[in-house]
Amino acid sequence: MNWPAILTDKLNVAYPIVQAPMFGVTTPAMVAAAANVGCLGSLALADMPPEKCIENIRATKLLTSLPFSVNLFVNDIPKIDERLKARYASTKNFIERLAAEHHLELSLPSMEQIELISYQEQVDAILGEGIKSVSFTFGNLDDPTIEKFKNHGVVLIGTCTSVEEAKLLEQSGIDIVCVQGIEAGGHRGSFVGDRIPQVAGISLLSQVRDEIKAPLIYAGGIYNARTLLAAQTLGAQGFQVGSLLLGSTESALKEFEKEKLQNVDESEIVLTRSFSGRYARGIKNKFIEAIENSRYILPYPYQNKLTGELRKLSKENQNLDFVSIWLGQSVNGYRRSSTGDLLQELIKEVESHSPSR
Amino acid sequence: MNWPAILTDKLNVAYPIVQAPMFGVTTPAMVAAAANVGCLGSLALADMPPEKCIENIRATKLLTSLPFSVNLFVNDIPKIDERLKARYASTKNFIERLAAEHHLELSLPSMEQIELISYQEQVDAILGEGIKSVSFTFGNLDDPTIEKFKNHGVVLIGTCTSVEEAKLLEQSGIDIVCVQGIEAGGHRGSFVGDRIPQVAGISLLSQVRDEIKAPLIYAGGIYNARTLLAAQTLGAQGFQVGSLLLGSTESALKEFEKEKLQNVDESEIVLTRSFSGRYARGIKNKFIEAIENSRYILPYPYQNKLTGELRKLSKENQNLDFVSIWLGQSVNGYRRSSTGDLLQELIKEVESHSPSR
Repeated sequence: MNWPAILTDKLNVAYPIVQAPMFGVTTPAMVAAAANVGCLGSLALADMPPEKCIENIRATKLLTSLPFSVNLFVNDIPKIDERLKARYASTKNFIERLAAEHHLELSLPSMEQIELISYQEQVDAILGEGIKSVSFTFGNLDDPTIEKFKNHGVVLIGTCTSVEEAKLLEQSGIDIVCVQGIEAGGHRGSFVGDRIPQVAGISLLSQVRDEIKAPLIYAGGIYNARTLLAAQTLGAQGFQVGSLLLGSTESALKEFEKEKLQNVDESEIVLTRSFSGRYARGIKNKFIEAIENSRYILPYPYQNKLTGELRKLSKENQNLDFVSIWLGQSVNGYRRSSTGDLLQELIKEVESHSPSR
Repeated sequence: MNWPAILTDKLNVAYPIVQAPMFGVTTPAMVAAAANVGCLGSLALADMPPEKCIENIRATKLLTSLPFSVNLFVNDIPKIDERLKARYASTKNFIERLAAEHHLELSLPSMEQIELISYQEQVDAILGEGIKSVSFTFGNLDDPTIEKFKNHGVVLIGTCTSVEEAKLLEQSGIDIVCVQGIEAGGHRGSFVGDRIPQVAGISLLSQVRDEIKAPLIYAGGIYNARTLLAAQTLGAQGFQVGSLLLGSTESALKEFEKEKLQNVDESEIVLTRSFSGRYARGIKNKFIEAIENSRYILPYPYQNKLTGELRKLSKENQNLDFVSIWLGQSVNGYRRSSTGDLLQELIKEVESHSPSR
């Protein structure tokens, strides 16, 4: 195959393959490794304060001189009112007791102790570091921010999970739309409607292609030449891989998590709001079973903040029951290798692929 | 493109395109129309008694001399015990009251009045009519039935929704596996595990291709050249279309249902157990909202039998609130035309497709 050129030109990379921004998994080393083999590395900034953003961008620059992108969470932050305060307190209490039952002693932060950063606070840090492409999820950028980025020549990549969301991104002038099929691991990027769309790649990507003109990146289930080329056939010019890199040397996952990922059954993969208050795809465990259908789920980002300490302690204790391990539906695509080798093998496989008849 | 030959040879058709068996939608006229343009028509026999099976097969034969397949429901039938009887009575009562609130007067059958037919009772009728390919869903055929069909030279097509189900079908000697992505409209064919798999086409089809050798048909989201060719890239040699034909002249849907299908928003599409006790994908309505999260859902086929009269009366009254309209995730692929024209246009589009770069 010939790689489509529209995104390599726009993003100034050799291959239109995007290393997915996976907060908690992606490291500066992973981003740099992706960049160094000609792909678009993506550094997840999530809700890091500006100085942390700068620190991580600079750590990446030490490892590569090639361009890479950063990823923002552009969700709304629900206002704190008496009802939310009460729900927070009872959820905090429930999770502390649940942890104690499983011999994890922790004291979760009170609502007042939580520090929330909005993406607007991160913009100047990103521009100051000369980043030339910014992807985002959980919403759409506000118009002044879009203008600010554009004035600095930054290419914008928005995430959609429905045709409607794709149209909204294009109407706002977002340069590239990342179409996230329901196959994808990690958080859903959905931002329209109360019930999140659950449209799968084949239907979603082709229908978005029918409706908008912007170049498309596809994310969700890509782990080999077949899946990447299918996304191309469906209308994508760029291809994002996340789960494929979970077991890489550069992944921040711990050894016990990487070992678990080696033996996942397809039936263990679920969509859950338990950890963050937003739906994400990953491996079912005790925490999800205890929380998912309970009333102890706060809106994002409060649930996320509340479970942070639990996940951290659980990780230190190598306890699979209370960590969040995100993984997409292509569970058999998992491999242990370096980020560079995994991406180069994918590129080689795609370039030498001949469809079986 | 060149059409893969493995399935056209096995099934004795010109094109490896399968008209999905859609019970309640598919008619002998639709099956014959598909056959007459060189595709594999599929007659849904569901739980029809043998004489009805013969009647429908003969009605199809009057309209085509070309081969077509029939489709069986091979589900287990849960034993009736006191608990199920009590649940049946309360569900019957709930649905009758719900209908009455909406001015639909009906008296649903008691459990004793329900007639249940197992697929084993249909086999001789099918063989007697000389049918040469049989597809099935909701389970796997028992070994003696597989042997009986094979002794008569019948090609068997089983339905899977997970890699595990695909392996089980292949191990039983099923000739062709139909891989049903979560995109698909209508009933899920799942038969392993309590929680149905919800794996989407890109991940499911490629991973099934990795694991089994049998030829694959893909079902779920195909509505144009892009989606069909993506399924080929992912490893399928056959391509099943269902939703594409809902608006055909030959579809048994009523005019008010076809009109509704013309204006469906992607957010209206849900997976629901409300109508049959088995998960199926279709358009959300009042009935689903009232039932889905209630305790008034019996195991298949009892729920299906119980809601049958309600759906029938609702259809007569052109009432969208209580009919089941199944539809897949490619909601924008809907068109009104004849089955023959819809299939021929798809074939032409595929044959002239050149991927955009």
